[in-house]
Amino acid sequence: MPSIFTKIIKGEIPCNKIAENQTHIAFLDVSPIARGHTLVVPKKEIDYLFDLPDDLLEDTMIFAKKIASAIDHALTPIRTGIIVEGLEVPHAHIHLVPIYKKTQKFSLGHSIDISEEEMKKIGERIAKEVNL
Amino acid sequence: MPSIFTKIIKGEIPCNKIAENQTHIAFLDVSPIARGHTLVVPKKEIDYLFDLPDDLLEDTMIFAKKIASAIDHALTPIRTGIIVEGLEVPHAHIHLVPIYKKTQKFSLGHSIDISEEEMKKIGERIAKEVNL
Repeated sequence: MPSIFTKIIKGEIPCNKIAENQTHIAFLDVSPIARGHTLVVPKKEIDYLFDLPDDLLEDTMIFAKKIASAIDHALTPIRTGIIVEGLEVPHAHIHLVPIYKKTQKFSLGHSIDISEEEMKKIGERIAKEVNL
Repeated sequence: MPSIFTKIIKGEIPCNKIAENQTHIAFLDVSPIARGHTLVVPKKEIDYLFDLPDDLLEDTMIFAKKIASAIDHALTPIRTGIIVEGLEVPHAHIHLVPIYKKTQKFSLGHSIDISEEEMKKIGERIAKEVNL
């Protein structure tokens, strides 16, 4: 069965897309722990991030770097951090989490309160800053 | 002033070293949030991970993949996750955190209780499994 991310990649499930190329996609996490919390996903469906072949893992980090740069320009956090747990969806993904203050809670599972309208606006602001 | 990680790299501060090559070092975090919690550090002192040049960022992930593989072989967690915050030490680093159960707390700042002796043993067990 295709993962939920594969369904998003195929357009069968909608998302607030940030950017996409032949091998990767980035879109806003539907349960963000901070404004601009974004998922970076290699299109190839491999469960464990560290099982990605070296070249694909390298490309994933460079793609993530470009998305983080777009987040940093659009939303000006202190910086953008990374979380990789990967126990919920069996399709490798990197959480890019903007850090706005040093005391910010930095773990998954406690989403902020945010409207669909604001999610859409934030997604568009980040997407504008992407240079792939 | 050199960062605390640069002092560790130079051998001025001791560590439970896991592995080292010309460009990177890995050692156990002194405040582990799980047994085998390891830091991967590029020797070049750059503050923000996403400011690393592309080739160095790629190398950092491949080095991290090898260390994660060693952790997975030595300690058999479900898998090894990643946290990058980087607000405490201004020298880019990746936290590799073995995940032993799905309910495990996965955020920095709450270290487990562990003796120096056990830290040393765990470090040696992981180091034995490293293939750079």
